[in-house]
Amino acid sequence: MQHLIDITSTSVDDLEAILARASDIADDPQRYQHAGRDRVMINLFYEPSTRTRVSFELAAMRLGLRVINVAASDSSVRKGETLQDTFLSLQAMGPDCIAIRHPTNGALGELTSVAEPRLHIVNAGDGSRAHPTQALLDLFTLRRHLPDLENRVVLVAGDLHHSRVTSSDVALMKKLGVGEIRLCAPRELMAGSLVTEGVRVFEDFDAALEGVDAVMMLRIQHERLGAMDAPDGQDYHRHWGLTNKRLALAAPGCIVMHPGPMNRGVEIDSEVADGPRSVIREQVSNGVWVRMAVLSHLLGLRGAD
Amino acid sequence: MQHLIDITSTSVDDLEAILARASDIADDPQRYQHAGRDRVMINLFYEPSTRTRVSFELAAMRLGLRVINVAASDSSVRKGETLQDTFLSLQAMGPDCIAIRHPTNGALGELTSVAEPRLHIVNAGDGSRAHPTQALLDLFTLRRHLPDLENRVVLVAGDLHHSRVTSSDVALMKKLGVGEIRLCAPRELMAGSLVTEGVRVFEDFDAALEGVDAVMMLRIQHERLGAMDAPDGQDYHRHWGLTNKRLALAAPGCIVMHPGPMNRGVEIDSEVADGPRSVIREQVSNGVWVRMAVLSHLLGLRGAD
Amino acid sequence: MQHLIDITSTSVDDLEAILARASDIADDPQRYQHAGRDRVMINLFYEPSTRTRVSFELAAMRLGLRVINVAASDSSVRKGETLQDTFLSLQAMGPDCIAIRHPTNGALGELTSVAEPRLHIVNAGDGSRAHPTQALLDLFTLRRHLPDLENRVVLVAGDLHHSRVTSSDVALMKKLGVGEIRLCAPRELMAGSLVTEGVRVFEDFDAALEGVDAVMMLRIQHERLGAMDAPDGQDYHRHWGLTNKRLALAAPGCIVMHPGPMNRGVEIDSEVADGPRSVIREQVSNGVWVRMAVLSHLLGLRGAD
Repeated sequence: MQHLIDITSTSVDDLEAILARASDIADDPQRYQHAGRDRVMINLFYEPSTRTRVSFELAAMRLGLRVINVAASDSSVRKGETLQDTFLSLQAMGPDCIAIRHPTNGALGELTSVAEPRLHIVNAGDGSRAHPTQALLDLFTLRRHLPDLENRVVLVAGDLHHSRVTSSDVALMKKLGVGEIRLCAPRELMAGSLVTEGVRVFEDFDAALEGVDAVMMLRIQHERLGAMDAPDGQDYHRHWGLTNKRLALAAPGCIVMHPGPMNRGVEIDSEVADGPRSVIREQVSNGVWVRMAVLSHLLGLRGAD
Repeated sequence: MQHLIDITSTSVDDLEAILARASDIADDPQRYQHAGRDRVMINLFYEPSTRTRVSFELAAMRLGLRVINVAASDSSVRKGETLQDTFLSLQAMGPDCIAIRHPTNGALGELTSVAEPRLHIVNAGDGSRAHPTQALLDLFTLRRHLPDLENRVVLVAGDLHHSRVTSSDVALMKKLGVGEIRLCAPRELMAGSLVTEGVRVFEDFDAALEGVDAVMMLRIQHERLGAMDAPDGQDYHRHWGLTNKRLALAAPGCIVMHPGPMNRGVEIDSEVADGPRSVIREQVSNGVWVRMAVLSHLLGLRGAD
Repeated sequence: MQHLIDITSTSVDDLEAILARASDIADDPQRYQHAGRDRVMINLFYEPSTRTRVSFELAAMRLGLRVINVAASDSSVRKGETLQDTFLSLQAMGPDCIAIRHPTNGALGELTSVAEPRLHIVNAGDGSRAHPTQALLDLFTLRRHLPDLENRVVLVAGDLHHSRVTSSDVALMKKLGVGEIRLCAPRELMAGSLVTEGVRVFEDFDAALEGVDAVMMLRIQHERLGAMDAPDGQDYHRHWGLTNKRLALAAPGCIVMHPGPMNRGVEIDSEVADGPRSVIREQVSNGVWVRMAVLSHLLGLRGAD
């Protein structure tokens, strides 16, 4: 496995190997702390992202790698150079790995054909479709709480249309086996492409929550509330916000997830976000273990004995 | 001592321990160069700052730490996430230390209650009130030149109202004992909160300078000159600029300090800034030793034998 | 040799030593990977640049140095501090080396007089005149393909007026001996200062290409096409773009160079840029070796035995 571009093109064996390695690392991260010494990762981010960029940077550092950040506001990007030319230049400088975030769907696919065998590409989020490391950390978190995931019900709810998390999450849950996958979104924010075999779609949030073992809430962006005639967020919250009252409809022990950053009081109440069912901070921690697993799997790094 | 939030809430013992450690480090920095190996510091800066950010970054590197920079222009911050949520996410990624600069007075106080025991917060300047590492480096510099500080007179002059340096400096000088603390500012730029017991306030710069052993000049921001009817800086310089002629009013050997960046020809003349009494560059160097001392004190790092 | 400011002020011996060292490093980079351990480089960039900044950062990391980036958008720069004061502050923090990019011609010259002996300055491009590390990597690339450079013909073509590459390249080719140096540019973009002894100037691109062993194409900036009455780039391409057809006028085996980023379809065709004569990616790779050579030469670092 040379690159991690998306969930669909990655084999079940590789996905399981990454998740198993993430478990090993979470149990004893010290074993890996110099595994990637003298290697270099470049973070090439065409869109800003605190959370994902810092998570990749910490994951790389914890493996002993050096990290170079390149942001979209930097020069070549502004000078109109193509993604492929920027990529080829950076590759020519000899890094071991490039993590790329880009606004265009599938932008990274074209790079794999020009990548040298020694260079590894990791998708850090492209367009509105793929965010494979987020999907892996979400599944890793689900399994830690619900080891018998094949018997469980997971609901993904909120702005399914614009979230780059959804497709990757659904693809991975299908691939690795979740008992039942439910989707629920306001009509304006439903993603038609997700409505496929093996997925149950709900129009009513309360009905969708009934008996679920995990609910993954998605961020609604303020500029999209206007398009829904819910410009102030309160109306959205009334119909689509996760409250403790709504959460009571779910199965006992149901866990609550959110990829962040949260809009408190809009798609999620603070009492839920900070409550006992929330594993939101744990997702963030798991993100570092999973990204360490991805990088060390691709680069062929081994933990110390 | 888990965090450094401000001077007031830090014990004299801890402040003295930090200053003593800074002396040790300045004498033999090599001893500490791998003390913090495999540790990670995040610089979370909601306001830009070359000087303070680079000083923290160099201090951390000199202890062997890895450093990750997060700037206000990054994404989550722009997406309207609260400081506390951003902090909690970053904490969940597992850094050892977060240095934070924030425009709001007291913003860091609320974070200490949600910080895990293994995570250390350092205030890199908040609002217009607290900048404890600057105060420590200023006091460190004063003591190196005036070891009998309890018998000395120190004047802080200029824009006392807007400088985040002043409160911390005055609080520390009071706490650790300076013979006499003088303040002097244009009426529009005096900070009422500083006019407390143990401080002498002057309205006339020349009178304030008489016999002082050290003068700390503060930066005046150009946008504030307008509000004083001194839009071109020349008028300000005439009344409030430190010249060699004015410096002659001070005690022989009086040292001149400035936190930078300087407005040459406005609050300070180049002949003073670059003259034999100036310890302005030394303050910058001492800033690295003091920040190494703060970080190693908080993280419990020890120098090699 | 303390600093690398420009080609003119650097001795032939030092230039040859750097190029020889770059060869050594390219042959076995591992030997140098910890040579600069515990040293620190600051990248002080007053203009954005992905390519040069990342190349310096990778070169420094490959020598084991730590790197701190300071961008023009950072604070002190915006607060109107002079370059010299910013430099003196950064120097006071104790880095070993500062690589500086600045928009003003000759801006770095004034810094050498205030630099301490232990501090090394490297020009990463200033104004429109000097970019010595680019010139060194270009010459290194030329020699790898054309070892008998003293018998060869090299053409530099395109926007000679605005490219900061040209002067340094021409100065270095003259200094180290190239058989014949040709320049060719649209009249509006010719640089009068380059038209000196030892250089042949052409007004016609086809004539200039006749029999050359290497052609270095320069980037044309879109905002400058307007001034030439060639606002859409197509007209520029017709007269000044390098195509395979034009390349056939050159000597057999003629190599094609470009400092990047390229405007494909304007100054260079994709079939040329990606064709068998192109050494454009190799230039980028060589840039890392050459910058490692510059840094290790200045800092007195030695490879492991």
